[in-house]
Amino acid sequence: MDYNYTRSYHGRVQLVVFDWAGTTVDFGCQAPIVAFAEGFRQKGIEISMAQAREPMGREKRAHIRAITEMDEVARAWEAQYGRPVSGEDIDEMFDDFVPLLLRILPDHSQLIPGVSEAIASLREQGIRIGASTGYFREAADTVAAAAAVQGYRPDVAISSSEVAVGRPAPWLIYRIMEELNIHPAAAVVNVGDTVVDVESGLNAGVWSIGVAATGNETGLSAEEFARTPTAERQALVAAAREKLLRAGAHQVIDTMEELPGVIECINGQLGRGCSP
Amino acid sequence: MDYNYTRSYHGRVQLVVFDWAGTTVDFGCQAPIVAFAEGFRQKGIEISMAQAREPMGREKRAHIRAITEMDEVARAWEAQYGRPVSGEDIDEMFDDFVPLLLRILPDHSQLIPGVSEAIASLREQGIRIGASTGYFREAADTVAAAAAVQGYRPDVAISSSEVAVGRPAPWLIYRIMEELNIHPAAAVVNVGDTVVDVESGLNAGVWSIGVAATGNETGLSAEEFARTPTAERQALVAAAREKLLRAGAHQVIDTMEELPGVIECINGQLGRGCSP
Amino acid sequence: MDYNYTRSYHGRVQLVVFDWAGTTVDFGCQAPIVAFAEGFRQKGIEISMAQAREPMGREKRAHIRAITEMDEVARAWEAQYGRPVSGEDIDEMFDDFVPLLLRILPDHSQLIPGVSEAIASLREQGIRIGASTGYFREAADTVAAAAAVQGYRPDVAISSSEVAVGRPAPWLIYRIMEELNIHPAAAVVNVGDTVVDVESGLNAGVWSIGVAATGNETGLSAEEFARTPTAERQALVAAAREKLLRAGAHQVIDTMEELPGVIECINGQLGRGCSP
Amino acid sequence: MDYNYTRSYHGRVQLVVFDWAGTTVDFGCQAPIVAFAEGFRQKGIEISMAQAREPMGREKRAHIRAITEMDEVARAWEAQYGRPVSGEDIDEMFDDFVPLLLRILPDHSQLIPGVSEAIASLREQGIRIGASTGYFREAADTVAAAAAVQGYRPDVAISSSEVAVGRPAPWLIYRIMEELNIHPAAAVVNVGDTVVDVESGLNAGVWSIGVAATGNETGLSAEEFARTPTAERQALVAAAREKLLRAGAHQVIDTMEELPGVIECINGQLGRGCSP
Amino acid sequence: MDYNYTRSYHGRVQLVVFDWAGTTVDFGCQAPIVAFAEGFRQKGIEISMAQAREPMGREKRAHIRAITEMDEVARAWEAQYGRPVSGEDIDEMFDDFVPLLLRILPDHSQLIPGVSEAIASLREQGIRIGASTGYFREAADTVAAAAAVQGYRPDVAISSSEVAVGRPAPWLIYRIMEELNIHPAAAVVNVGDTVVDVESGLNAGVWSIGVAATGNETGLSAEEFARTPTAERQALVAAAREKLLRAGAHQVIDTMEELPGVIECINGQLGRGCSP
Amino acid sequence: MDYNYTRSYHGRVQLVVFDWAGTTVDFGCQAPIVAFAEGFRQKGIEISMAQAREPMGREKRAHIRAITEMDEVARAWEAQYGRPVSGEDIDEMFDDFVPLLLRILPDHSQLIPGVSEAIASLREQGIRIGASTGYFREAADTVAAAAAVQGYRPDVAISSSEVAVGRPAPWLIYRIMEELNIHPAAAVVNVGDTVVDVESGLNAGVWSIGVAATGNETGLSAEEFARTPTAERQALVAAAREKLLRAGAHQVIDTMEELPGVIECINGQLGRGCSP
Repeated sequence: MDYNYTRSYHGRVQLVVFDWAGTTVDFGCQAPIVAFAEGFRQKGIEISMAQAREPMGREKRAHIRAITEMDEVARAWEAQYGRPVSGEDIDEMFDDFVPLLLRILPDHSQLIPGVSEAIASLREQGIRIGASTGYFREAADTVAAAAAVQGYRPDVAISSSEVAVGRPAPWLIYRIMEELNIHPAAAVVNVGDTVVDVESGLNAGVWSIGVAATGNETGLSAEEFARTPTAERQALVAAAREKLLRAGAHQVIDTMEELPGVIECINGQLGRGCSP
Repeated sequence: MDYNYTRSYHGRVQLVVFDWAGTTVDFGCQAPIVAFAEGFRQKGIEISMAQAREPMGREKRAHIRAITEMDEVARAWEAQYGRPVSGEDIDEMFDDFVPLLLRILPDHSQLIPGVSEAIASLREQGIRIGASTGYFREAADTVAAAAAVQGYRPDVAISSSEVAVGRPAPWLIYRIMEELNIHPAAAVVNVGDTVVDVESGLNAGVWSIGVAATGNETGLSAEEFARTPTAERQALVAAAREKLLRAGAHQVIDTMEELPGVIECINGQLGRGCSP
Repeated sequence: MDYNYTRSYHGRVQLVVFDWAGTTVDFGCQAPIVAFAEGFRQKGIEISMAQAREPMGREKRAHIRAITEMDEVARAWEAQYGRPVSGEDIDEMFDDFVPLLLRILPDHSQLIPGVSEAIASLREQGIRIGASTGYFREAADTVAAAAAVQGYRPDVAISSSEVAVGRPAPWLIYRIMEELNIHPAAAVVNVGDTVVDVESGLNAGVWSIGVAATGNETGLSAEEFARTPTAERQALVAAAREKLLRAGAHQVIDTMEELPGVIECINGQLGRGCSP
Repeated sequence: MDYNYTRSYHGRVQLVVFDWAGTTVDFGCQAPIVAFAEGFRQKGIEISMAQAREPMGREKRAHIRAITEMDEVARAWEAQYGRPVSGEDIDEMFDDFVPLLLRILPDHSQLIPGVSEAIASLREQGIRIGASTGYFREAADTVAAAAAVQGYRPDVAISSSEVAVGRPAPWLIYRIMEELNIHPAAAVVNVGDTVVDVESGLNAGVWSIGVAATGNETGLSAEEFARTPTAERQALVAAAREKLLRAGAHQVIDTMEELPGVIECINGQLGRGCSP
Repeated sequence: MDYNYTRSYHGRVQLVVFDWAGTTVDFGCQAPIVAFAEGFRQKGIEISMAQAREPMGREKRAHIRAITEMDEVARAWEAQYGRPVSGEDIDEMFDDFVPLLLRILPDHSQLIPGVSEAIASLREQGIRIGASTGYFREAADTVAAAAAVQGYRPDVAISSSEVAVGRPAPWLIYRIMEELNIHPAAAVVNVGDTVVDVESGLNAGVWSIGVAATGNETGLSAEEFARTPTAERQALVAAAREKLLRAGAHQVIDTMEELPGVIECINGQLGRGCSP
Repeated sequence: MDYNYTRSYHGRVQLVVFDWAGTTVDFGCQAPIVAFAEGFRQKGIEISMAQAREPMGREKRAHIRAITEMDEVARAWEAQYGRPVSGEDIDEMFDDFVPLLLRILPDHSQLIPGVSEAIASLREQGIRIGASTGYFREAADTVAAAAAVQGYRPDVAISSSEVAVGRPAPWLIYRIMEELNIHPAAAVVNVGDTVVDVESGLNAGVWSIGVAATGNETGLSAEEFARTPTAERQALVAAAREKLLRAGAHQVIDTMEELPGVIECINGQLGRGCSP
């Protein structure tokens, strides 16, 4: 027997897994930023939105620590308290962060324009929908409840609380695949707005799509986006697109309107025997 | 930004997942066969080992039903009971199968020759070891306990009871990867002796290796293997090898002695940017 | 860090570099042939157009020497002068060749049919146009001036005088890319009618397109082309096409009318991540 | 003629182009950093080495402007001068930067350990050596003169002054190839320590190698490197390696000692018909 | 000379080779099955259609032996004759098989629906038609004569009698290519309904297409096919399709109606430089 | 069933097919040249060896016609006979060519140095040996008989008389494969010294190896080869090598000594799943 047989998937996309904030809800991924800024304000420290956003994608406690280590923030803290930030300070701020985020979330759970239409188009093709998030369970549930009211109900939703290690590990995606009993990985598409979203898709071996304009890498709320001069906005979106492409995204779209076309393109690649 | 960046894993194998029966213990994958035969014997029906083995790889209840549907077995049943097999009969036989298998297992949990050395070689390279099985939890625990006594202790062991859908779905492999926090799939190798083992590896997107001589597809116990004339034995092993290759195995080895060489070869392929 | 990132260009064609004689002007690449034949006639030696054309593509002095080494020409020379050709003879003929070519060029600088339309189509897509040539500077300038009158004005034109080593070295193409600041090579297409044109494109790592019917490999002037019987003409063009394909051309077109389609096809290949 | 012929280069590496600072001389790429810091000090502004290095790789005037736009530097400037930085200020600082760098360079032109041996090994294989740099001509000449004294004399050296647009454009590499008449691009290797070096190699279509430990991305002088605790040093080098890999480098080496092995590996890839 | 040139066929499909029974005539590949069953009946042994079909694809004498070795058949034989089957018995049955098949064939030579239209479509594109078969010459001639009456006349028809070794060896396909002087293999498509058909195509290096619904792997006559409930029929066809795909078929079609589309698809792949 | 299975040959080379003249016997491929020259001499026309060799590879009658169409030969013919060459002249010369070649062959059937050793090395690996030739049957038999005396006895030898269309059609190779029942094409290597040899291998889909130094493209007899100055000889061999590479040969060797290494290299490629 001198022959090998190489199996390749020639079917179609069966499952699309979406991130929540910045991808399907919360244009510009504002909620955690606002919560971080508010958390520091409660401690008497003013931080800018840019500072609040910079460590985005890290685990939330590590995110808080990273902000406290910025030169200006560290100086402000010392001025306020006469001593550097301690581990207890960070624990305290993290404990405060949870209720703060939960309180803020309902105001930041509006579906991003184009999401409903994109999901409807996928549904029509019989594609199943999963939702994953870096949020802990209550935050995820809050967002999901708000989205359901607006008509977006994924078949399965998993939060970071349900896995030992969060993104960029691929475990959220694998759990959703298992729950819906959909395999192989080549039949699955992951869609997210951050570098760690893109990397979790790559680590899972699925198709990994980045969303540039509405998410964390551009970092503008819907209102900010609307009032930013076109050239500046395009530059911000282009920089976000480049960042996601450099992370290895198979494709990057500006907004969800482009998603059905990308799925069609992936179906074409699968038909030619390509894999992610 | 007109560039795409295609990420590829250039590291080494970090995890090998082994099947139990026929791969690391129970030369020839005898235990379930013996249990099925004994189960039918208790019902007053004699079946051959070949008949007992034929549906191998299916879920155990489906396996029993498949045996009852063989022409000769069906006739024997009708001769014995004056009626065809009913769903209740199959339920009953399945309920009997569980304690029967558990009783038989300790006699069929000897490590297959070469396994200790292969595992030791992988350990030396820092490779983690996982164990998966189509057995339910108690059977898996029984085998694991017996193997531990002989010095084989995988880092993680998962049984079919822990996932909603068994092989060839990839969930067992994904759970082991998650437990050990090892990704991407290209860093993982699955080793098994059946077509469904090979397919579960492919479905997981990991490297999928088949073992031909010591497992279910050759289907000889260590003693039978030793006393079978060389030419006949070679023909049986060649047929087993072909069956596993036709399932899409990346490589098929006769015995575990060849495994370290195959891992080295996979490391070479990873170094050239290949993926499973 | 166990990952490599392979960058690939997914943009579109940004620059097309055209050869002059036989590609955009001078149907059949007649000017140098006529000049060579006239040069030998001035020495009292009649050579055929086929003999004049055979060494085409070589540097002009080497071209003259190659003609003198043909058996019949060598015999004719000895008959005329009573001695073999000397290095001084060749120098002299080369010195005569320059003004001769310059005098003849204006009569052989008509745009080849279809060139204007092809260039217009590329311009509409925002593609920049470069012109390269094996001619020395004055000859190149003469041709360019004549072409400009007919409406064809490349963004940059470079002659062999500006580089140390002529085609098939890729320096002319690289200079044009630098002048227009266009990279990478995958965004550039080279178009020419000779084997050395094709090879200069391959050596530059750009897309290399051959033109078969209107250039040197078919070797018919527009009038000759029109009056050659169809079957014979097709055979000549097919032979030219084969010669350019065997040189490694990515694609060979008969006439410039096919160019926009080829550019579209290359854009498609770039979109699928292919490179030249 | 229904056949295409795809040409591929099966020869060996013929030319290696090295960057200067951080790659072959000036361990840690200190000279421009020191000059920038000194330039600001002369204006009465203290900046950290990290601030001075951050915009590394940009054109020098843009580099200065980027430093002045950092929050703390901007505040210090306003405190010092009672007004924001003006275009004239930047022009002035750039004019001062040139003599400053030239004065400092001789102290930062020591060959990096391992460079002599690596070059000697390439020379033995008949490989030609080119040198390119982001420096302007006088700075490049100064460095080259100092290197020559230490025995490193590239066959061709080109500075940014000789091309219209600097890195990551590929023009420096193309000019060196032309000067030495070496093509195709697959026969050429570019070696540098910054992301723009890596990208200039990719843009040229040559093999692009990054050097992690001794260059700008690690950013430690030889002395700093020696006295940094091993774990921290390894983390810095690993981060530098990742940055260069993410830019698309075909391979990243820690130090020049690994270069001959990498060249051998590229020769192997060329032998198998691979291209950069 | 450091360049290799890889030739690839960019032409179109020039020849399609069809199997006879189950592919172009004899819906469900009934004739040999009926003949085998009748042969055993004449010996006083009743075998089922499933038993008669199981060894399908083997040489006819080996096919007969395989049936006699089935447990139930062996037992029936012993009950009938009081001794096991001998070599002479098999010879005798084979000798009887030939006239039996020839007698039966005319009733099983009807063109399968869709064949005429598919052939007509290929003819329009100038594609030549070959016919190969596992039948011996007289059987092949009988079928060909019947097909001719119905309007299907391949340019060349070859039977197994004309080659030393039958399928899955590729000799029948090579003989047809030679007869029509058509090469290379990439310009040829083989179409058949059995695993050995598919493998003979692969062994010849041509494009290998399987036909699932009308052939031996589904194994239903046109009437049986029509009256089988849809779900059961779909399951049978799906199983046949899977079997042919697992054999390595480049594509599997249900019925001949899909063939022109597949040929178009192969032309597209050839245009992109792919080979079988 | 959404999976395709791509079969690939992972075995080893099983058959090598050698051309006769210029490859295994008759260093420099002299016999037909000498016969052509002698044939013209008998007509009173002196032609050079270069003229006699130029059309090499064409069918013999076409070869003769091609010589008569060379300018000088045509003039000499007219001078001799007062009229151009007629079809009857060519028929006559072809009829004379057969006995002439047969008479000359025994003097040109010496094994080329290195052939015995190369064949012995292949035999040791269990590789079968085939011989094909453009000669008609009697010429082929004459050469084979002479080779047998010297110890070279291929397992099968086929002449052009046995196929309808000669090289570059692949029929000779296919017939040898059939005779020895060896497939697939990936297990076969063709070795020859002319462009049509190389193309017949490509057309058969087997590995196609060219021999440069000892064959028709270099065109020197063993004595001429020995006495030609090294530089000139190297240039001739390099030109021959380039010609065979440009025809698409997978590899070109100078002499048969390199063959076992090339076979080993092909075995390596097969092991990596590559095909010709």
